[in-house]
Amino acid sequence: MSWTEELARELGAPVQTDGDVLASFARDQAPLAPAGAPRALVRARSVDDVTATLRFANARRIPVVTRGAGTGLAGGANAVDGCVVLLVSGLDRILAVDAATRTAVVEPGVLNGVLAREAAARGLYYAPDPASRDISTIGGNIATNAGGSCCLKYGVTGDHVAALKLALADGTILRTGGLTKKNVAGLDLTRLVVGSEGTLGVIVEATVRLLPAPRPPSTLLAFFDTLDDAARAIVAMDALADLSLLEVMDQVTVRAVDEMTRMDLDTSAAALLLVQSDARDAPASIARCEELCRAHAARSVLCTDDPEEGRLLLGARRMALPALERKGTTLLDDVAVPRPALPEMLARIRRAGERHRLVIGTFGHAGDGNLHPTIVFDRTDAASTSAAFAAFDEIVRDAMSLGGTISGEHGVGALKRDYLGAMVGEPERALMARVKAAFDPHGILNPGKAI
Amino acid sequence: MSWTEELARELGAPVQTDGDVLASFARDQAPLAPAGAPRALVRARSVDDVTATLRFANARRIPVVTRGAGTGLAGGANAVDGCVVLLVSGLDRILAVDAATRTAVVEPGVLNGVLAREAAARGLYYAPDPASRDISTIGGNIATNAGGSCCLKYGVTGDHVAALKLALADGTILRTGGLTKKNVAGLDLTRLVVGSEGTLGVIVEATVRLLPAPRPPSTLLAFFDTLDDAARAIVAMDALADLSLLEVMDQVTVRAVDEMTRMDLDTSAAALLLVQSDARDAPASIARCEELCRAHAARSVLCTDDPEEGRLLLGARRMALPALERKGTTLLDDVAVPRPALPEMLARIRRAGERHRLVIGTFGHAGDGNLHPTIVFDRTDAASTSAAFAAFDEIVRDAMSLGGTISGEHGVGALKRDYLGAMVGEPERALMARVKAAFDPHGILNPGKAI
Repeated sequence: MSWTEELARELGAPVQTDGDVLASFARDQAPLAPAGAPRALVRARSVDDVTATLRFANARRIPVVTRGAGTGLAGGANAVDGCVVLLVSGLDRILAVDAATRTAVVEPGVLNGVLAREAAARGLYYAPDPASRDISTIGGNIATNAGGSCCLKYGVTGDHVAALKLALADGTILRTGGLTKKNVAGLDLTRLVVGSEGTLGVIVEATVRLLPAPRPPSTLLAFFDTLDDAARAIVAMDALADLSLLEVMDQVTVRAVDEMTRMDLDTSAAALLLVQSDARDAPASIARCEELCRAHAARSVLCTDDPEEGRLLLGARRMALPALERKGTTLLDDVAVPRPALPEMLARIRRAGERHRLVIGTFGHAGDGNLHPTIVFDRTDAASTSAAFAAFDEIVRDAMSLGGTISGEHGVGALKRDYLGAMVGEPERALMARVKAAFDPHGILNPGKAI
Repeated sequence: MSWTEELARELGAPVQTDGDVLASFARDQAPLAPAGAPRALVRARSVDDVTATLRFANARRIPVVTRGAGTGLAGGANAVDGCVVLLVSGLDRILAVDAATRTAVVEPGVLNGVLAREAAARGLYYAPDPASRDISTIGGNIATNAGGSCCLKYGVTGDHVAALKLALADGTILRTGGLTKKNVAGLDLTRLVVGSEGTLGVIVEATVRLLPAPRPPSTLLAFFDTLDDAARAIVAMDALADLSLLEVMDQVTVRAVDEMTRMDLDTSAAALLLVQSDARDAPASIARCEELCRAHAARSVLCTDDPEEGRLLLGARRMALPALERKGTTLLDDVAVPRPALPEMLARIRRAGERHRLVIGTFGHAGDGNLHPTIVFDRTDAASTSAAFAAFDEIVRDAMSLGGTISGEHGVGALKRDYLGAMVGEPERALMARVKAAFDPHGILNPGKAI
């Protein structure tokens, strides 16, 4: 009997081994990151399925790659050769939403957008808002410490995780964290698991924090003659601490979006800024942003307190990646730099595009210095492909040299593992590996990723 | 030659071994927590002194207890038998304050208050405000993930730590973290070290985040006929998300403070609440709090937009612990519960006092559900002492049973290590020990503390 049959017997349920099925679970949404060939797919129906699979795999040293919706952008959920893909997207119940403690208890497969709507129905707010929120899971959001536009004001996913129920590699169940915001009881393992990309354990339940619903935002849309003017306006807005959104799009991105959506954007402008405030005096904040934009030579500024109009304007930003993807194969990057370095980082990205004769559309969460330079190239052309990877490499190294990071919100996954040593230094990388070993002594959990 | 002489030669500087000197460095501010007898005191003058001491001690398996200002309240810096006390309070330079990235780089011995003033002089704000801020160090604040009154709005110390320079047990220097708020590059070791109470490494430098200075706060002071009314008002204020301070004092505490300060507080009231908002529409927030207090039968409410008057009113809260310490020996507790459980937690504390015939003064950061029940007893009386510890034990267990924590902001240290297993469960405690071993394989760093 093969081990996949044994595992099926252990679970009392079929384990899929069909090549076509497995192939469709071998990759997430980072097509250019390396991926191996899985040997089996387990669709977990319960926490018991998770722990049974882990015990089985741990005893036989079979690698396990945990997968939610597969919307990751760094190959963190890409298969490794011979692994079990452990699919937890079926564990998708919201177990509790408690208005009194402002927390929700969810299984890992709950979609972010489903939780956000459930919270909103109770006058509450689940803040973390990755662009993928309608199709990505809370478990995956936690595993990558996903970002979004809200982070400027509300912080990253990890800032909203109170407690976790975690299955370790040997099937042991742990409960980390607690409900109180202040809690100094031993090491903060909750925060350690956030962003660990499936290398420390399998999240089988999460308790997340909710906020009182903020007021509907006021919105500003500004166009600039130069990208540098826009970047300097972003830096100047830094002192306005209560903005809830500050996004940038360059001309390449604006043109791609306008071509796709016919929104009638100003495609002759070099850059667009979108700003929101949901503070109680939002109109006053937005008025100050308008002044700053005009002081930085904005060619046009539009402000609105109508939330529906704001939502429509944000549609342009939401379409950025899909619009660029229509132009060719895309290599999506995710770097972040300290906000004062944004003008220089944007200039370097533009120069990388010019040097390699590539189209690069840049957009991102400018308020957090988090940019997504998206390299458009022709995958059937070896020279174009090689130029794209060279530009990608230069951009990641530029971010590091400006005091930034190799990944703001997508994670290291399989795509950027070769950069981690340069980012954190070898002693720290080695320590991370020792910490992983404390959780997973046989190294079965998502080996070769993140660390 | 004794090892202390060898260490002195290694350092090129005296190592203190005098019994009286050592005795004065054997304890922090938790007089009732267990402490051992140190063998040597090293006053680090440089990072090299720190790493040389660690290399020496690690090779010989000599325990090392790192100490800043010694203001800890859980015995985290208490000596263990035969240890080196490694004093880092002399490393007290502010290395940089950068308004552009809103960060400061400091050595571990910088006093919180000194950094806060240095930031304020540049129009910036270092938020973490433990009551000890004028005498406690940033290194110690990070080691205990110190809280304070600001946490309600601004979060705990860990929320303001961007990066650390850490000496490991073997003397290796690591740099964790980075300047960007979004950063998913491997495991979050920065956050793991925060709150680890000197068990993972010695913090030799920290990069902390600064905020734009908030506006001067508006303040409310309210007195209530019953503690329960006050507690229910606190719960009701939960929806007012922009309060920057929400503190409670019970009658025992109010009377002790009034006796000491002659502030003319209403000593016939059962409880006092202090509330502040530093939002741009603070007066409106405070007006809403006033309504809520009156709706919960407050006997008197005073509101002021004058920051100086607010500062004077807060003086009552700052004097709470010193005032109670005048009444006898005090056993200071630090529990936190989810805010909705506050009325029940306060009732249980009062019942514990009645049951054991003890005076317990309770005050704390009510907005975070973080209370400091302070048991006043007679240390020369065995029955009183034993009753005090019994009440302490019941209060800690009550906090756990209400979904809370054994420590909100002081840490586990030596005082509460016997509760950690009950708090997190044995599998998690064992995992914490394995994670510590990944940092410190020979277990020389603050053994027996925190975990």
